Amino acid sequence: MTAPPPLYPLLYEPLVRRALEEDLGRAGDLTTDAVVPLAARGEARVVARADGRIAGLPAALSAFRLLDPEVEIDLRSADGRDAAGGETLAVVRGPLRPILSAERTALNLLGRLSGVATATRGIVRAIEAEVGPEAGAGRARVVCTRKTTPGLRALEKHAVRCGGGANHRFGLDDAVLVKDNHRAVAGGVAEAVRRVRAHVGHLVKVEVEVDTLEELDAALAAGVDAVLLDNMSLDQLAEAVRRARRATPRPVTEASGGITPDTAPRIAATGVDLLSVGWITHSAPALDVALDLS
Amino acid sequence: MTAPPPLYPLLYEPLVRRALEEDLGRAGDLTTDAVVPLAARGEARVVARADGRIAGLPAALSAFRLLDPEVEIDLRSADGRDAAGGETLAVVRGPLRPILSAERTALNLLGRLSGVATATRGIVRAIEAEVGPEAGAGRARVVCTRKTTPGLRALEKHAVRCGGGANHRFGLDDAVLVKDNHRAVAGGVAEAVRRVRAHVGHLVKVEVEVDTLEELDAALAAGVDAVLLDNMSLDQLAEAVRRARRATPRPVTEASGGITPDTAPRIAATGVDLLSVGWITHSAPALDVALDLS
Amino acid sequence: MTAPPPLYPLLYEPLVRRALEEDLGRAGDLTTDAVVPLAARGEARVVARADGRIAGLPAALSAFRLLDPEVEIDLRSADGRDAAGGETLAVVRGPLRPILSAERTALNLLGRLSGVATATRGIVRAIEAEVGPEAGAGRARVVCTRKTTPGLRALEKHAVRCGGGANHRFGLDDAVLVKDNHRAVAGGVAEAVRRVRAHVGHLVKVEVEVDTLEELDAALAAGVDAVLLDNMSLDQLAEAVRRARRATPRPVTEASGGITPDTAPRIAATGVDLLSVGWITHSAPALDVALDLS
Amino acid sequence: MTAPPPLYPLLYEPLVRRALEEDLGRAGDLTTDAVVPLAARGEARVVARADGRIAGLPAALSAFRLLDPEVEIDLRSADGRDAAGGETLAVVRGPLRPILSAERTALNLLGRLSGVATATRGIVRAIEAEVGPEAGAGRARVVCTRKTTPGLRALEKHAVRCGGGANHRFGLDDAVLVKDNHRAVAGGVAEAVRRVRAHVGHLVKVEVEVDTLEELDAALAAGVDAVLLDNMSLDQLAEAVRRARRATPRPVTEASGGITPDTAPRIAATGVDLLSVGWITHSAPALDVALDLS
Amino acid sequence: MTAPPPLYPLLYEPLVRRALEEDLGRAGDLTTDAVVPLAARGEARVVARADGRIAGLPAALSAFRLLDPEVEIDLRSADGRDAAGGETLAVVRGPLRPILSAERTALNLLGRLSGVATATRGIVRAIEAEVGPEAGAGRARVVCTRKTTPGLRALEKHAVRCGGGANHRFGLDDAVLVKDNHRAVAGGVAEAVRRVRAHVGHLVKVEVEVDTLEELDAALAAGVDAVLLDNMSLDQLAEAVRRARRATPRPVTEASGGITPDTAPRIAATGVDLLSVGWITHSAPALDVALDLS
Amino acid sequence: MTAPPPLYPLLYEPLVRRALEEDLGRAGDLTTDAVVPLAARGEARVVARADGRIAGLPAALSAFRLLDPEVEIDLRSADGRDAAGGETLAVVRGPLRPILSAERTALNLLGRLSGVATATRGIVRAIEAEVGPEAGAGRARVVCTRKTTPGLRALEKHAVRCGGGANHRFGLDDAVLVKDNHRAVAGGVAEAVRRVRAHVGHLVKVEVEVDTLEELDAALAAGVDAVLLDNMSLDQLAEAVRRARRATPRPVTEASGGITPDTAPRIAATGVDLLSVGWITHSAPALDVALDLS
Repeated sequence: MTAPPPLYPLLYEPLVRRALEEDLGRAGDLTTDAVVPLAARGEARVVARADGRIAGLPAALSAFRLLDPEVEIDLRSADGRDAAGGETLAVVRGPLRPILSAERTALNLLGRLSGVATATRGIVRAIEAEVGPEAGAGRARVVCTRKTTPGLRALEKHAVRCGGGANHRFGLDDAVLVKDNHRAVAGGVAEAVRRVRAHVGHLVKVEVEVDTLEELDAALAAGVDAVLLDNMSLDQLAEAVRRARRATPRPVTEASGGITPDTAPRIAATGVDLLSVGWITHSAPALDVALDLS
Repeated sequence: MTAPPPLYPLLYEPLVRRALEEDLGRAGDLTTDAVVPLAARGEARVVARADGRIAGLPAALSAFRLLDPEVEIDLRSADGRDAAGGETLAVVRGPLRPILSAERTALNLLGRLSGVATATRGIVRAIEAEVGPEAGAGRARVVCTRKTTPGLRALEKHAVRCGGGANHRFGLDDAVLVKDNHRAVAGGVAEAVRRVRAHVGHLVKVEVEVDTLEELDAALAAGVDAVLLDNMSLDQLAEAVRRARRATPRPVTEASGGITPDTAPRIAATGVDLLSVGWITHSAPALDVALDLS
Repeated sequence: MTAPPPLYPLLYEPLVRRALEEDLGRAGDLTTDAVVPLAARGEARVVARADGRIAGLPAALSAFRLLDPEVEIDLRSADGRDAAGGETLAVVRGPLRPILSAERTALNLLGRLSGVATATRGIVRAIEAEVGPEAGAGRARVVCTRKTTPGLRALEKHAVRCGGGANHRFGLDDAVLVKDNHRAVAGGVAEAVRRVRAHVGHLVKVEVEVDTLEELDAALAAGVDAVLLDNMSLDQLAEAVRRARRATPRPVTEASGGITPDTAPRIAATGVDLLSVGWITHSAPALDVALDLS
Repeated sequence: MTAPPPLYPLLYEPLVRRALEEDLGRAGDLTTDAVVPLAARGEARVVARADGRIAGLPAALSAFRLLDPEVEIDLRSADGRDAAGGETLAVVRGPLRPILSAERTALNLLGRLSGVATATRGIVRAIEAEVGPEAGAGRARVVCTRKTTPGLRALEKHAVRCGGGANHRFGLDDAVLVKDNHRAVAGGVAEAVRRVRAHVGHLVKVEVEVDTLEELDAALAAGVDAVLLDNMSLDQLAEAVRRARRATPRPVTEASGGITPDTAPRIAATGVDLLSVGWITHSAPALDVALDLS
Repeated sequence: MTAPPPLYPLLYEPLVRRALEEDLGRAGDLTTDAVVPLAARGEARVVARADGRIAGLPAALSAFRLLDPEVEIDLRSADGRDAAGGETLAVVRGPLRPILSAERTALNLLGRLSGVATATRGIVRAIEAEVGPEAGAGRARVVCTRKTTPGLRALEKHAVRCGGGANHRFGLDDAVLVKDNHRAVAGGVAEAVRRVRAHVGHLVKVEVEVDTLEELDAALAAGVDAVLLDNMSLDQLAEAVRRARRATPRPVTEASGGITPDTAPRIAATGVDLLSVGWITHSAPALDVALDLS
Repeated sequence: MTAPPPLYPLLYEPLVRRALEEDLGRAGDLTTDAVVPLAARGEARVVARADGRIAGLPAALSAFRLLDPEVEIDLRSADGRDAAGGETLAVVRGPLRPILSAERTALNLLGRLSGVATATRGIVRAIEAEVGPEAGAGRARVVCTRKTTPGLRALEKHAVRCGGGANHRFGLDDAVLVKDNHRAVAGGVAEAVRRVRAHVGHLVKVEVEVDTLEELDAALAAGVDAVLLDNMSLDQLAEAVRRARRATPRPVTEASGGITPDTAPRIAATGVDLLSVGWITHSAPALDVALDLS
């Protein structure tokens, strides 16, 4: 697993700016402005208080410099790296007021995104422990869903990649996923796929969610790019994978439905290509991170 | 516990609008636009899939009407109410396309905020089971922190109230909280409070974080409005409460530091007025909510 | 060809609002405010002054109602329909001042988008005249590029669909297109595609631009989803199509490079699936539209 | 003709930022991020592929630095200068990823604005070929209209100046132009001008559109600053100019109505001061510009 | 003097929205939400507590409906009308919470703009008392400057018109005003005007600020549209008016420099066309307005 | 009185940017762009033309650098300092065009905020002249209200501190103020305070407005943090202070109602802790400031 490409500030600075405004309000940091002299300078370490996978470090640290460009950042870790509890991720130096006033904004972002990465890593590792760490045959990838925090999708998708996962759709507009409601409206998988093909461009992939092997057969007959095998038993999954492998073209197979680190290895062992997991974005606990004044 | 006041759309519509734009991207909902006829109308139920406390229902449902004002909303629950798994929270009716296209945006917001409310309710109930449900002597309140999701502070603070908790500071500018770093810079509690008093207006309360009983005594001597008793043992908390009750003016006492539903009752039994809990906003799992087509 | 799905106002109202602000400035419409009494009411027809294909009609007409919700719109045409010179596209009724003051904003948007649709229609028709109007074997589709007006991409892509064309990528993030610069950096098609495969999710299609038949062979060997045949002669295109049809999986073939209504039919006759045309968005003349007071 | 004053970034950066966001979407440049190593650096030339007049060069190039401030820009041309096909307009150096990822945004803006400038230059040159290049008696100026792209008015007006043209109104609020609809509502030119004079400030000029010589006489009698001679024949224009030159004060005369490079010289020869041309902004083809990696 | 045209909500709603957000902050109106039951409904009168000229009434009242569209507005006055102390300007009815929570935002806007209108009216009346109320020969108009509150220019310019004044430039871009610094840079009035003429469009008027009669002569020789007679004595003004009246074309004459209601009549009596007064926007006291619950 | 903490640019740059856009419009500074050569450089002094207290200097000067980062600022004064008429507050150096084009934006902001500070200083000094400059017993502080300019609240509150005043609530959400309307709805002070206590967090102070000594007694009985003594006579105020000093806890006493520099000293002499004054924000005349080219 290589680190994902860094995000451009253009994509996260508006969010960080809003978060700072949200915390500073109209009157700014009353406590720090009262207690800390304007001329005071200092140094503080951003530290992990628990073991985890780092994500969002540059975005989080941008809070200090958006508040005051005189604050200097000395990176000691990077997105996609593991951190042990107590490890220093970055050192920030400069005027003390903005360091203390931007602290919470920076930590809130870093804790949440690293929490997503750490949760992703947990499932990835559970699968690797079962099937070995090599990407390749038999090695299922973990993918996220659209169940992300409002306003943070791009960052949380990035955090999933930092955790060793891969990305599903970023939105409703970059791929087709025919879900049960669509199938019901169209009157079946075949008709739904036909309508989609008449509508979308040539660079749009088509995935179909199926609940049964019969629906799977309809999807395979329609020649889709991927099938989402929703809430199937391990036996059903294994059979579904067999059928998909015989299909031409061979679609990507994806399992979904309440997957946890405990159940993931056995699901991966069925041979599915992907496990999609919603809770790594919607319910991952934050990684405990802190700012320690030197 | 009465329901908190409803939020004005002015405060959440920009966020919901950004979340819709984030999901629809440039091309909109490829699948729904291809599969569902423009004239199709329908009805769907927003349901809780698990037992929990509801929060953010009007904000979440506004997604449907921001996308298409022809969608009608029929509320069956409300912020601050309990929901059982399977319970219908609202019925949405109208053109089917916007109902399906705004679904994920609405559910993401509702799931997260109801997750915060449900987590808060969990701790509140654990305390009530120990000390009885009546507010009053011996009944500690649960309060949140500033460890919230970037961009969602007002909504998550609201969700805490929906869960039966109370709010701490909304930001750095509406009250003073002298933390360890401030104390260190000032050279002691007394000097920090003196600087604060010279600086802030008459409607700003002052709280001081203390780690030891000696620091507590300094805070009591300074006559602060509240003391944050950080990471103290149960015995220390009990002694701190005793000392605070003897002080004039008598400050509010607040315990903090890794409080969970398990540890909360015994902490509450020490007599502290407040338990502040960070994980109810930064790490609460989302409540499972869904949209079922009728 | 059916009409494309209508766009949600959420996607175009911010643009229309900015356009109105841009025209009204700080002082509003000096002439209309001075000359037209506040109470004057009237009716005006939005008319096509030339033959063309309509696109952006609801977006354009929203200008009147964003300025004054009392203006009523009576639609007589729709996006994706043909209009003859002189045909009435809509009737607007109500207070006369906002009708006159929003006129230019509405017409600028309608003229530009209908110009894009009309240009697209021109190429589509030229091809149909050669190969017959039925979609199917031998019938190449016209697709657009990312050479769109800054700020108007979603609307111009919509206009291309209104003109009978199909959409290519909406941006850099919804599909992969390996261009000559990427190929050069990677040191060849095979390596570029290998890097891409290790990076992107399972719902992202991969297209490769090739200039020669040798590069085409490398792309076919890499098993890509589509090949962009750039600036090839008709003979080369025909040979490329033959080779692509023999490949497994069979990629979509797309011709590009200075395609005009004159050259399109012969290019289509080579059997390529798609003709991508930049000028239908970056250089299409506006359709002449006007507002006539009744 | 000297070059127009450069625009401040304050006026165009929001637009360029939106254009970058529009192209990068939520996931950024999938292809470049996958294929080009993070550390790769390079140099590329922005080149004109056809002969034309340059406009919007600093605005377009700002895309590279808004994406990554480490990209360096080496200007080789300037707004208002002519470029030959193949000429290098600027060299950009630095990290290769942002150079490739901002390429299309930069070129889209540069191509469109230079297209406007080149179209303007075409008409200006046609007139100069007839009447000589000296500004002065008998030399009509080319002016634009409000028929601009939504969101790009200030930039397109600037491009017209780069092309050797002059600017008409920037919006509805900086001058009065009484058009046929206003005249009809007021019941005549005289009454319309009277209402305007009672309404506007002393620094607002008043122009009246006239279709006939009778209306012209009414406008001259009203003492307006300028007359817009709409869709008049060459003979009518010549007579109108004669009447205007006899009036006190002598108004500026402006011809309008479907003016092309072919018809412009003869219209200019009638002695009108200005030719206003809509298509140089609403229908000018883009100048072909490209980015070549060195 | 007739009332100025009403402003479109498009021009003021963003400002009112920001003002509401500024007052409600993150937690909303703590007092009202706690004390007033959600179901409480009521009626309140917006009243003038002092005699004055009303401006900004629709903009101010929009605060109630932007907060809650259920609030109904019953207008009893209008922009440009006089109000006596105690007079009801509007009645607002509906849910009581939003009425109380939007009160201050509405009153702040109404008080400030009506203060500008009232100050303007004061100078206009002082002049009328001297020279009679008829517009015409000898009747100088009062105009404002660009010394307005940041963010409120369009509204304050509107308020000046409500007070019976007229508008000067709205910004740096709608007319030319050559001031002393420009003159110094150019090396004289003549050269400054020559540069301007070579630069600006035909619908831009040119005014020149002059401090002496010699500079005035240079401006008259340059044939400018208006002259700003800055800080001249009454005798100098009278002489300047005489010279300007003899010039061809005859420029508008404008006096400026510390003009007050006391000095205005005598300045007007010199025959100048305009008196420009900065303090009516930058230093006018607010009109006392209030909200009285019925 | 020490200077208030400087504001972060994050809090004022959006406002300054909007103010620049408001002044530059679409076409920029026509006069300066025409008259001043692009290469011209210069130096100008920002000067006070009258005696006053400075506020908003960094915010105002940011206008120059937001327009062109090449302009250099040399500060000669600071927020919270007194300036004599003629004193230089800052020197700006660099390209002359942006210095002249940002001049008015900078001066408008500086003049207004320094006007607020100067007005505040006036009342503070009047009180000090009566009771001596030492903070302490008998020395009332001057506080502002929420009667601020829409959009400028944070800056005007800062200006009040620069003038030696203190801040009241920044908005409806950072403290409780039970006003007459709330009291009426609740049916009395006691009930209103009871509702508030059941609603708000532990860091929110509660103030109650009272008009009579009977209401004061009810407020004292309710144990509120502060009482606002509205429109009381000097005798009533003195009696109110006596009663408040006997209360436990002893609330802060605040006088309000038409307080001027003339009446302030005697009101302060009654022993009230605070005098709240609306006109220092809503009606303070601007301080006369100017930009002089060197």
